[in-house]
Amino acid sequence: MAVYTEVSDEVLRAFLADYALGGLLAFRGIAEGVENSNYALRTAAGDFILTLYEKRVDPAELPYFLGLMDHLAARGLACPTPVAGRDGQALRRLAGRPAAICTFLEGVWPRRVRPEHLAPLGQALARLHLAGEGFAMRRPNALGPRGWAPLLDGCRARGDEVLPGLVAELDGHLAAILSAWPEAGALPEGQIHADLFPDNVFFLPDAEGRPRVSGLIDFYFACTDLLAYDVAVCLNAWCFEPDGAFNVTKARAMLGAYAALRPLSGAERAALPVLCRGAAIRFLLTRLYDWTHTPPGALVTRKDPLEYLRKLRFFAGAATPGAIGA
Amino acid sequence: MAVYTEVSDEVLRAFLADYALGGLLAFRGIAEGVENSNYALRTAAGDFILTLYEKRVDPAELPYFLGLMDHLAARGLACPTPVAGRDGQALRRLAGRPAAICTFLEGVWPRRVRPEHLAPLGQALARLHLAGEGFAMRRPNALGPRGWAPLLDGCRARGDEVLPGLVAELDGHLAAILSAWPEAGALPEGQIHADLFPDNVFFLPDAEGRPRVSGLIDFYFACTDLLAYDVAVCLNAWCFEPDGAFNVTKARAMLGAYAALRPLSGAERAALPVLCRGAAIRFLLTRLYDWTHTPPGALVTRKDPLEYLRKLRFFAGAATPGAIGA
Repeated sequence: MAVYTEVSDEVLRAFLADYALGGLLAFRGIAEGVENSNYALRTAAGDFILTLYEKRVDPAELPYFLGLMDHLAARGLACPTPVAGRDGQALRRLAGRPAAICTFLEGVWPRRVRPEHLAPLGQALARLHLAGEGFAMRRPNALGPRGWAPLLDGCRARGDEVLPGLVAELDGHLAAILSAWPEAGALPEGQIHADLFPDNVFFLPDAEGRPRVSGLIDFYFACTDLLAYDVAVCLNAWCFEPDGAFNVTKARAMLGAYAALRPLSGAERAALPVLCRGAAIRFLLTRLYDWTHTPPGALVTRKDPLEYLRKLRFFAGAATPGAIGA
Repeated sequence: MAVYTEVSDEVLRAFLADYALGGLLAFRGIAEGVENSNYALRTAAGDFILTLYEKRVDPAELPYFLGLMDHLAARGLACPTPVAGRDGQALRRLAGRPAAICTFLEGVWPRRVRPEHLAPLGQALARLHLAGEGFAMRRPNALGPRGWAPLLDGCRARGDEVLPGLVAELDGHLAAILSAWPEAGALPEGQIHADLFPDNVFFLPDAEGRPRVSGLIDFYFACTDLLAYDVAVCLNAWCFEPDGAFNVTKARAMLGAYAALRPLSGAERAALPVLCRGAAIRFLLTRLYDWTHTPPGALVTRKDPLEYLRKLRFFAGAATPGAIGA
């Protein structure tokens, strides 16, 4: 739940004067997105999303994020498109923070994932990976394998308060994951979303009422990394039922639709189990870090790290690609 | 900041099937409004606000609130208009809660109140009072004079933690306010908004760039009470500067524009000082109650009760209507 920075209407009008979007017609904070302040903005030119980048986003990385969205949109992917001001710049400042206006996407994210969401998701993910080709900038994955040991170290003092023995268990998992991780260059790399959870994928029904993806949003974890790692993130985020069971039917639907557009190599399929363990420990560690570093009274909804411990344990036990649908 | 109840897209689609609004196109939580869950909803028929009424709203009072909005909108006031389902009913249930869809209003509420907002505000308030005539339902003001002593009693145990001596000072103010309060029938009554703070008033610039009111929202404190009390609420909510100083120019602009449409009687003008003290103690007491009854870790932004102590002291010292612009 967001909106950390309050923007006065006068300051907003002055900001909008630098765009060719016409007059301000409506402006409301959006209660979604965790990292930034997001506003639904309506001007004479239509509907937009105004984002103010809060302190967890490094301003130096914004040209990568905005450039990637621009590149993807230009190649036909439905994603927020940065809107440039009259001077051609999309990245600007507002109320003391970096800020950008992007196009508004219609669609609704699935609060409950159904099997029929998975094939459209797989297609959209493959299209994202193909559309990312040719984008010239690189951003290392700060939350990739090299980031996990420091994150775990940061949780060492208080991690066992969440679950006795947790830190030792994670030490074991992390060592196993890092030793099995694909060598550099062994798998195809590209621009990945890295956080393609259900709340970042909008759907609308097609003429027959079946869900189709109307847009992908929130590219602020995007980076340059193994394409198959993005698939592994989706297997984590989309293929478990509320009771914790892995739904292999969902996984197969997602992987099949993905591979129909961008075939997975044998090496990528073979690596998926360890990539899934990596994705599970990545979300587990950031949640655990937030859990152990957030004062109990803070105005932030803390996400349960143990949800990802259960997923990590599942993937650690699922030794074969077949067990996870690959 | 709101959105307490999460609505799944399937449940929402089933809910929308009871309306003639066409298919769902977008659905996002709004980070404004304190009491209820609000969503920006787009369907083939346009933009709407979906509200789920949370536990602080008594379901038995919803027919009054929705009926009043309907009545006001039918008489030309720009306010959210409840949208009826196919069966003619606007008040429905969704996700286990009472819920209603209302029309979307364009406009932006003023984060910083400027003098030129006040005349349009006064006009809009007078129009609201005139449009409310003929509405057949009554709702007593639960947060009116008879509610203040019980509220203060609820703060007695911990009120002095906010400021030493506060409870005794409020006992004195409250006794003085209640003894000076207008007799029943002495002043005109009608339907009042009772919470017309800046975030409930949307503005858009007119052709010359001057602010005009595009809509009034959030009628969930509306009730049947002294019309001049609503004026007193606005004097509290709109006419103090951030440094605590009362801006009599703003007050005069608001009162003049109000009276041009609905003249204030001599008795109403004479009563304004005590009505302002009443409005100040009303917001002071609810804030103090929330402050002393909210656990420090709760996901709620507590508003400062002492802001209204300063206003109460100002009005207690401003003995004459002239001192407050009347």
